[in-house]
Amino acid sequence: MVTKRELKALPEGADLRRADSLAREVFSDVANKWALLIIEALGERTLRFSELRKEVEGVSHKMLTQNLRTLERDGLVDRKVYPTVPPRVEYTLTEPGRALRATVDAMCGWTQQYLHHIEAARNRFDA
Amino acid sequence: MVTKRELKALPEGADLRRADSLAREVFSDVANKWALLIIEALGERTLRFSELRKEVEGVSHKMLTQNLRTLERDGLVDRKVYPTVPPRVEYTLTEPGRALRATVDAMCGWTQQYLHHIEAARNRFDA
Repeated sequence: MVTKRELKALPEGADLRRADSLAREVFSDVANKWALLIIEALGERTLRFSELRKEVEGVSHKMLTQNLRTLERDGLVDRKVYPTVPPRVEYTLTEPGRALRATVDAMCGWTQQYLHHIEAARNRFDA
Repeated sequence: MVTKRELKALPEGADLRRADSLAREVFSDVANKWALLIIEALGERTLRFSELRKEVEGVSHKMLTQNLRTLERDGLVDRKVYPTVPPRVEYTLTEPGRALRATVDAMCGWTQQYLHHIEAARNRFDA
């Protein structure tokens, strides 16, 4: 992301400013727990809505719907409707979605690696 | 993170369950826009509260305070108070915080790389 310092150095940086504002928007779309857990779950395989709800533990129907819509709008998740009765709806990661998943994986890996550090820090803080 | 399927395969996985619950908690603490932007800002250098507020554009006093407290409790941010008048308070990333920053960097890099893809996807979706 463009830092404020970089922007100040560019008085004519209108395009950069627009790109930065879009980058902030996109970052907001994906930098939340549910979006990241959805991307992580879809990294394994294509899933239906009900399967996703089971995989992303604790997500409400509303939050899952909202986040899937945002991810679909940003082109990270592909939504396919099959004309069966009842219609089957499946969600798959797109190529940009798969690329983002690699960073989510790194974050999950970080969580595992530092779990004991963090637990110890919490105990110190709470003491 | 441990998947539900893995947990079901381990009827005696109580320790794993506890670790997984903690991992989910930690993931929730850090997987939000403000926490990630704070970590990104502190990746450059030690900052005071007021400097952080300028760097993390759009963050409210309350959200910054709450997130810094959570990050300090998890041991990702170190808070130092210098006994000046008025007291100077500085925030620095710890080693686990710096390791997390690498994954945030990857996410920011992803945002930049796919910005045009995402913009095009949005235009198609909104049309």
